[in-house]
Amino acid sequence: MNSSSPIAIIDSGLGGLTVARAIRATLPYESVVYFGDTARLPYGNKTAETVSRFVAQIIAFLRQYEPKHVVIACNTATALALTMLRELYPDLSISGVIDPGAKAAIIAAGRKVTPVIGVIATDATVKSRAYERAIHSRRRHARLICRPTPLLVPIIEEGRRNEDPLVKLALQQYIKPLMDRGLDVLVLGCTHYPILKEPIEELVGAGVSVIDSAEQCADDVARRLQEAGLLRGQQEEPGDLHCYVTDDPERFARLASRFLGFDVPTPTWIRADDLYKDKEFLPQMDTDEHG
Amino acid sequence: MNSSSPIAIIDSGLGGLTVARAIRATLPYESVVYFGDTARLPYGNKTAETVSRFVAQIIAFLRQYEPKHVVIACNTATALALTMLRELYPDLSISGVIDPGAKAAIIAAGRKVTPVIGVIATDATVKSRAYERAIHSRRRHARLICRPTPLLVPIIEEGRRNEDPLVKLALQQYIKPLMDRGLDVLVLGCTHYPILKEPIEELVGAGVSVIDSAEQCADDVARRLQEAGLLRGQQEEPGDLHCYVTDDPERFARLASRFLGFDVPTPTWIRADDLYKDKEFLPQMDTDEHG
Repeated sequence: MNSSSPIAIIDSGLGGLTVARAIRATLPYESVVYFGDTARLPYGNKTAETVSRFVAQIIAFLRQYEPKHVVIACNTATALALTMLRELYPDLSISGVIDPGAKAAIIAAGRKVTPVIGVIATDATVKSRAYERAIHSRRRHARLICRPTPLLVPIIEEGRRNEDPLVKLALQQYIKPLMDRGLDVLVLGCTHYPILKEPIEELVGAGVSVIDSAEQCADDVARRLQEAGLLRGQQEEPGDLHCYVTDDPERFARLASRFLGFDVPTPTWIRADDLYKDKEFLPQMDTDEHG
Repeated sequence: MNSSSPIAIIDSGLGGLTVARAIRATLPYESVVYFGDTARLPYGNKTAETVSRFVAQIIAFLRQYEPKHVVIACNTATALALTMLRELYPDLSISGVIDPGAKAAIIAAGRKVTPVIGVIATDATVKSRAYERAIHSRRRHARLICRPTPLLVPIIEEGRRNEDPLVKLALQQYIKPLMDRGLDVLVLGCTHYPILKEPIEELVGAGVSVIDSAEQCADDVARRLQEAGLLRGQQEEPGDLHCYVTDDPERFARLASRFLGFDVPTPTWIRADDLYKDKEFLPQMDTDEHG
């Protein structure tokens, strides 16, 4: 691996493209390999074991690129799998989106000793308590209100407009109870949610900072690469972006520009089976039998 | 295989339990093996190739039970994969939920030559045009209005109550445009939707028949078994029900009673990887490279 190796970005589908977009903006000369596990999405209602397995397979596949850094650009996968993935691949530099989001939330909370910080996220992310840990390690007395908001991803994937009454109603139902408890900061704890940042900011008003962890995540990646001496210098051309998906490359390409802000060429289709093919390539994971 | 062999029922998750429930009610002495692919759900926004692959792997796994009949209890999988699965497993008796639903819709339409039949379903089911084919083969001049309603499954899985304003708004947005075109019959083209039958019937009013294909599907299975001489006679005890899932058996068991009307013991957890393990056990499928 060297400074010309790519950064790998992994997500269950499209949401991680908001992170890819921020990384492209912050580090325009880096090449990026993006992997969206569209055959097995979403991750947000699945167990830690299953999500860890899926992401471990994807990293095993992406090793062929000798990535200089791997970003788990999905809050659920970060919450459920990051620790395990670092143990499984000790030679790889791997980071997620939760720590950067927590850091940004604390900065936004300013000097308040007991700021009220809301987090909206998937079921799995909320249950993992990963945001509690990340925020409390920085500000012990912050008051956390974490709320699962499982309809927001399907609402975004359906392509509804911000002014759709159902979008407004869903946001109100989910976020109003948090506002009633004196919210200072609201963390968008899912990489899909920045798509709804506008109506969310409108709803919570100017007094509440809305944190989209993508930018903070890009800064975090830039800092890591700099520390490791792996930043690619200025080039004549910006770096490449190549995408892989496990299903429906055409749909991915069609919807990607909404997340990315620009078009991508049709991604390469890797069947989920092919991630299992070279078994010896995959790390061993414990699989206790249940049920 | 003989009359004491079980009936296999396959779904992406919980929805197929509405079919299992109808089959248990119609054929109480039959044993049932239910498979919910909870690690890879939903199927409704995935391609025919991927869904066919997933279901083919599940059937390969369930063959150990020598099932006397296999029910694809998922509209998406029926629409995208049934024809291919029958070719792949010519020795197995396999049926789906779309033909029974189409038949029920035609019966409900009575003698009208050009009844207006609405179908609400997943994106993939609507795009497949499977309902058009099934209904037009029975009544050529029926007017079909098929509408993708992708939020209904996540709304149901979130456990929202029928009187929730968001449930009412979503149903109104999806179904009102169909009612405005003079609906006679509305087909619930997804095995999850019977959970919302009550508010749907309330919305469309008594003049519109709402078709839940589960019962018709159970009658269809009973007829097939009778014709094949494979009906199990009356026993002292009702047949068994055993469930497999690819993720989170506890969640499945917790939510199952809402679909099934009674509790199930915790299902057995089969990892999605294990469906790939015995490669020689799996049928060969064409996999043209895309992208």
